[in-house]
Amino acid sequence: MARILTGIQSTGTPHLGNILGAIMPAIEMSNEGDNESFLFIADMHSLTQIKDGNELRENTYSVAATWLAFGLDADKTVFYRQSDVPEVTELTWYLSCFFPYQRLTLAHSFKDKSDRLSDVNSGLFTYPMLMAADILLYDANYVPVGKDQLQHLEMTRDVASRINHHYNEELLIVPEAKVQEHTKLVPGTDGEKMSKSRDNFIDVFLADKALKKAINKKIITDATPLEEPKNTDDSALVGLYKLVASEEQYEELLSKLHAGGYGWGHAKGDLHQALISKFGEAREKYHHYMNNKKELDDVLAMGAEKARVVAKETLLRVRSKMGY
Amino acid sequence: MARILTGIQSTGTPHLGNILGAIMPAIEMSNEGDNESFLFIADMHSLTQIKDGNELRENTYSVAATWLAFGLDADKTVFYRQSDVPEVTELTWYLSCFFPYQRLTLAHSFKDKSDRLSDVNSGLFTYPMLMAADILLYDANYVPVGKDQLQHLEMTRDVASRINHHYNEELLIVPEAKVQEHTKLVPGTDGEKMSKSRDNFIDVFLADKALKKAINKKIITDATPLEEPKNTDDSALVGLYKLVASEEQYEELLSKLHAGGYGWGHAKGDLHQALISKFGEAREKYHHYMNNKKELDDVLAMGAEKARVVAKETLLRVRSKMGY
Repeated sequence: MARILTGIQSTGTPHLGNILGAIMPAIEMSNEGDNESFLFIADMHSLTQIKDGNELRENTYSVAATWLAFGLDADKTVFYRQSDVPEVTELTWYLSCFFPYQRLTLAHSFKDKSDRLSDVNSGLFTYPMLMAADILLYDANYVPVGKDQLQHLEMTRDVASRINHHYNEELLIVPEAKVQEHTKLVPGTDGEKMSKSRDNFIDVFLADKALKKAINKKIITDATPLEEPKNTDDSALVGLYKLVASEEQYEELLSKLHAGGYGWGHAKGDLHQALISKFGEAREKYHHYMNNKKELDDVLAMGAEKARVVAKETLLRVRSKMGY
Repeated sequence: MARILTGIQSTGTPHLGNILGAIMPAIEMSNEGDNESFLFIADMHSLTQIKDGNELRENTYSVAATWLAFGLDADKTVFYRQSDVPEVTELTWYLSCFFPYQRLTLAHSFKDKSDRLSDVNSGLFTYPMLMAADILLYDANYVPVGKDQLQHLEMTRDVASRINHHYNEELLIVPEAKVQEHTKLVPGTDGEKMSKSRDNFIDVFLADKALKKAINKKIITDATPLEEPKNTDDSALVGLYKLVASEEQYEELLSKLHAGGYGWGHAKGDLHQALISKFGEAREKYHHYMNNKKELDDVLAMGAEKARVVAKETLLRVRSKMGY
């Protein structure tokens, strides 16, 4: 049985792009097969960016609530908050002592910011070591990563191999990347890939009216008059509708738009309806959790307890070998 | 009541220079006054240099045995092994997220090695953050430092101030340096300052015969014939003798050497005798501890327990503010 470990960023409330492109497929994967899934919310990483305690805490809850709302089975999966097993920072230190400084300066996460170095904090610089510890602490065999994280995974493999080689035994499991080639592209409200940084995202957890307003206001459509047929190629609205409606509903929307006499405003209303209908249950669950954070704490604490068992074993093995 | 925190390197068995120049004065200081002393063996720092588990472990024991052998009162002092309170690495991460990468590149400990960067591991680079955490985790008010460590203490003050300023409260105690201006200069066997790296040190814990042999072999003297008067200026041997013998014995040695008919070999014998007599009890205790490591473990565990109480409080304060 292989162990698959996935880290989840927690820099904000997950939006439609995160949900359709990453969360739903990951949950599907974790619920099938007989692999063991470790899934953690990387709230210690978030501190490199977020310095407001309440914001950071709320983000973590919001991410946890989303995953649970979309059906993550916390009994089957080891689902935990990174900061609930702070032992990971101990392993980070040990790894650092075996990893060349110069290789760390080559990390994309650092190099991308080399033109404004004065904004880079030391945490951001050493982040690949914390990420390596996140993985190695739990003896993970596979790590699903986007292509942008492949280099960090390579660093993880590198430091594990260096340590294994130095102590001449398999002290740490060298993990393999599972590169996700075909991630679902979710268009943002401007047609580009939906992302937080572009502010072209849709927050599906907004209350009914606010969601409707966001759809109307944010999604960009062309100025074709109501009565004329619409060009639906490259339409963000149509692209989004396709992802959340049924095949039948989608064809119907296309027909109506192509026929004319049916405006973009109507189509936005249809998208709103489709979102409400597809995500109704998840929206309800999400808000239930956000109003009952004690339940989230309990679920995450249970996960941390399971995670800690593995973490303690790994640390014991490493400490004893290194002289502690 | 002020809290004074001292970190002890553990990169080898303490030699005569460490003992006379640092350990004995520090123990004297910790036993007087009503300040609270925290004293820890920095064995996690050692990993930046020492990658042999047994060597690292033995060094730690050897350092602990030395301090106890020279009279450290482990009931009065909080005496612990850094790695026994690994929570320090958690604080290290939090601090890192508030400290500019660029400032870290200015650390002497790093800059000194900039001509052979390929030898520098990431741990060595981030070492000032671990050192800052060592201090801030325990709410230390004063930190005795040599001039070479003053910059690291400044970084500690800097990161604490940044965090306090950001959260607009005194989350961390900003410590003050106690610069030790007048450290006793202990000459090495070649007349230069005694140090491990110059290999001009004397290991006072050697067995009787081996100690005698080391003195005879290592201490450099001039080639004046036995019968002639000796020049005792700048003599490493005389300098060392002065530090371990009584005033009376020292004057007597000078007279004999100046008179002639008394060789350097005789003087080396006198130094050997003086060392045995001054350190006899400490040598015995040291070897007792090294042969009963369980006792060392117990003493250090007691210290770690006391240290952890403070560490937990600090972390709770910091975590809650940062969003954990």
